[in-house]
Amino acid sequence: MKKIGVVDTTFARVDMGAIAVDELKKQGTGFRIIRRTVPGIKDLPVECKKLIEEEGCDVVMALGMPGGEDIDKMCAHEASTGLIQAQLMTNTHIVEVFVHEDEAGDDRELLWLVDRRVREHAENAYLLAFDPDALIKKAGTGQRQGFPDEGPITTSRKKGDIKAGAEEKGEKAKKSGKSSRQKSGKSS
Amino acid sequence: MKKIGVVDTTFARVDMGAIAVDELKKQGTGFRIIRRTVPGIKDLPVECKKLIEEEGCDVVMALGMPGGEDIDKMCAHEASTGLIQAQLMTNTHIVEVFVHEDEAGDDRELLWLVDRRVREHAENAYLLAFDPDALIKKAGTGQRQGFPDEGPITTSRKKGDIKAGAEEKGEKAKKSGKSSRQKSGKSS
Amino acid sequence: MKKIGVVDTTFARVDMGAIAVDELKKQGTGFRIIRRTVPGIKDLPVECKKLIEEEGCDVVMALGMPGGEDIDKMCAHEASTGLIQAQLMTNTHIVEVFVHEDEAGDDRELLWLVDRRVREHAENAYLLAFDPDALIKKAGTGQRQGFPDEGPITTSRKKGDIKAGAEEKGEKAKKSGKSSRQKSGKSS
Amino acid sequence: MKKIGVVDTTFARVDMGAIAVDELKKQGTGFRIIRRTVPGIKDLPVECKKLIEEEGCDVVMALGMPGGEDIDKMCAHEASTGLIQAQLMTNTHIVEVFVHEDEAGDDRELLWLVDRRVREHAENAYLLAFDPDALIKKAGTGQRQGFPDEGPITTSRKKGDIKAGAEEKGEKAKKSGKSSRQKSGKSS
Amino acid sequence: MKKIGVVDTTFARVDMGAIAVDELKKQGTGFRIIRRTVPGIKDLPVECKKLIEEEGCDVVMALGMPGGEDIDKMCAHEASTGLIQAQLMTNTHIVEVFVHEDEAGDDRELLWLVDRRVREHAENAYLLAFDPDALIKKAGTGQRQGFPDEGPITTSRKKGDIKAGAEEKGEKAKKSGKSSRQKSGKSS
Repeated sequence: MKKIGVVDTTFARVDMGAIAVDELKKQGTGFRIIRRTVPGIKDLPVECKKLIEEEGCDVVMALGMPGGEDIDKMCAHEASTGLIQAQLMTNTHIVEVFVHEDEAGDDRELLWLVDRRVREHAENAYLLAFDPDALIKKAGTGQRQGFPDEGPITTSRKKGDIKAGAEEKGEKAKKSGKSSRQKSGKSS
Repeated sequence: MKKIGVVDTTFARVDMGAIAVDELKKQGTGFRIIRRTVPGIKDLPVECKKLIEEEGCDVVMALGMPGGEDIDKMCAHEASTGLIQAQLMTNTHIVEVFVHEDEAGDDRELLWLVDRRVREHAENAYLLAFDPDALIKKAGTGQRQGFPDEGPITTSRKKGDIKAGAEEKGEKAKKSGKSSRQKSGKSS
Repeated sequence: MKKIGVVDTTFARVDMGAIAVDELKKQGTGFRIIRRTVPGIKDLPVECKKLIEEEGCDVVMALGMPGGEDIDKMCAHEASTGLIQAQLMTNTHIVEVFVHEDEAGDDRELLWLVDRRVREHAENAYLLAFDPDALIKKAGTGQRQGFPDEGPITTSRKKGDIKAGAEEKGEKAKKSGKSSRQKSGKSS
Repeated sequence: MKKIGVVDTTFARVDMGAIAVDELKKQGTGFRIIRRTVPGIKDLPVECKKLIEEEGCDVVMALGMPGGEDIDKMCAHEASTGLIQAQLMTNTHIVEVFVHEDEAGDDRELLWLVDRRVREHAENAYLLAFDPDALIKKAGTGQRQGFPDEGPITTSRKKGDIKAGAEEKGEKAKKSGKSSRQKSGKSS
Repeated sequence: MKKIGVVDTTFARVDMGAIAVDELKKQGTGFRIIRRTVPGIKDLPVECKKLIEEEGCDVVMALGMPGGEDIDKMCAHEASTGLIQAQLMTNTHIVEVFVHEDEAGDDRELLWLVDRRVREHAENAYLLAFDPDALIKKAGTGQRQGFPDEGPITTSRKKGDIKAGAEEKGEKAKKSGKSSRQKSGKSS
């Protein structure tokens, strides 16, 4: 049975791990979830690596909420660099889900954003482990996690200077990409 | 018997290692503390790694006080990057405890901050080694080491747009998080 | 038979992988293409490494479209650093093809730029795997992928203070470098 | 017999290696010094690692004088990052001794600074290899290499809100830290 | 027989590899040169590592011409970081020779600068592989590659507060350092 790791922090102001676990269970069955919590985002890389190497996780979600100060941005940069290293050392995906405090105007929007982003990335983590080909179908469709998708660039349709195959797919993807989730999101 | 490593610097203006050792002893028993001191924070990564690989430490605290200049911030960044690498190379947690000189208004506050942060992270180090599940209970509760905890975001309670389980826990955690320590801290 | 890997993202707003696959097929035969899609550019390094180590790819194209914000530039930096690490860990080339959203004035130009850059780098990937000596012939000729080539510096011709051999080659390369592709590009 | 490595650069404007060798010999006996010179600071990491792995050095001093431009600061950052990596790969300390050209007002002060910093770090290198416990005694005493020591923070003495043990030691260390060397240094 | 690797880019606007090969041949005999060209500077690290590990090179020159934009400076930083990593992974020197486009006022000066810097670093590469002790003689003499050497700081001569040995050597080095090459360079 496959295993999906979930690691969050005590620093975050939302229980991101609980949201991730909830959403993963909605995505499908046939896997076991292993959850861990560390103090801050710089503690995530090693914990994710331990889940992969010591617990046998097939993919891990690394969840964190960096603050809005310069020092917080540097911490996030260091954590991200470490998460990429951990992936390279294990040949295993770690889906980084960071929500920066200054991405939202107030606590209410922040909470909404955290919930959306964690859930949409939980889907990504699930697909990476169970159905990677499903991601190819979304290639180049301007997916965003949390805020509404950007969608694919469509100007080209008039110009016709890139090949038809890519066009058609972009077209199709755009339609499906703008479905359920986005409607319930903020519109601006 | 488990071992906890403590490494600080001669550069720091407070004997951070002594505070860490004192607090660790208050956290519990059943472990041995191994202490080292290096010149500056950039010497921390290798010393921490040596404590793990040569002395068998199960977790290490890396203590430092970067100055307020740009060059000091760069040093702290380099040290942090190295500490994360050291963790990935050893699959062992190193709890970074840095207090930046410019975080406090004067020496008095700085001293207070160092003492608080070292002690709160000593608890984190202890939990990572002996009781990791205790950290899951604090997930997303906005813990801060030194200054008062931010606490979890609570706007959602009215909105009800994230699941109840997370809510309840955030609620509970917030209450317990605002206990003893925070009261004795600064209030603003 | 050689294998060329192609990895793009769901974040990009153009199906870069499809363009790469299309162009690679025009470059030659005798190889198999393996395509993958990941959520964002920070997921590229490990996927590229997996294609090399688990699928046996001889070269990989890593395709992405970083946004124009500061945070996006940091992501691109982290991804690039990881891609270089992945190459060093595998002794295999990964051709990074990033198109920054703010490189183009509007969607139309952006689409044009993506198409050009992906195709020109597909040629580079092909040459690295099949005909590395062909690249030596282009050494120092100011090649650019997407926008028109800069071409080699030619002031020296009048001065004669660098050796003749390099001169002749620069001369030759400049002529061939300014051929087909550039004419159809933008001229300023 | 232990070995101490010394690596400096042809870029520096002071023969830092000679100063280091001179000071190391004053620190004690029972070790052999191996000296190398590389072009610039970015060549230091690999040379230090070679001294450790190929020559068996127990500790290495990496000496350099980065210029004052932005590009020089970036070089110093890259070199520092590499030096930390080299230490992690070898479990061996490399004492980085960089003097930035813009740290001093004129050549005369720069020369003074280089001499002091190299000598004080030579002592650190010696202690790391031969007497690491001596460094614990200096923990948190605000040591600086070159300019006068900052000394430990002492406000706490009046407040009494950190434990007595640390206090006493800080007190003692401050006294001994402000000894011989500092008197002959600049006072502002 | 020793081997020296030379890697340059198609991005550069001068055939740097040809200059390097030409100069290396002037430095001496008894070695074989292996040349490669890659698209851009971020492709240099892995190619240099391949030359070391797959072709057995004893030292490699990595040649590139980063542009003057912010994004180019970031690329140069990433490439440099990778080159240092490649050296640490192989215990072999890679001499980075980067000429930033904005270092020169116009194409004519840029061409002059590239030629000088490549040739002076070719000498460094040769010395690292064949005569490392020759570099010790130049320690701390303010060598620059391309623009005139800074030379050693000499104020100390009057002060007499650093040891005589270093002084004499600085003196000697300064004289020989300001020889042939510098005269033909720019004087300001």
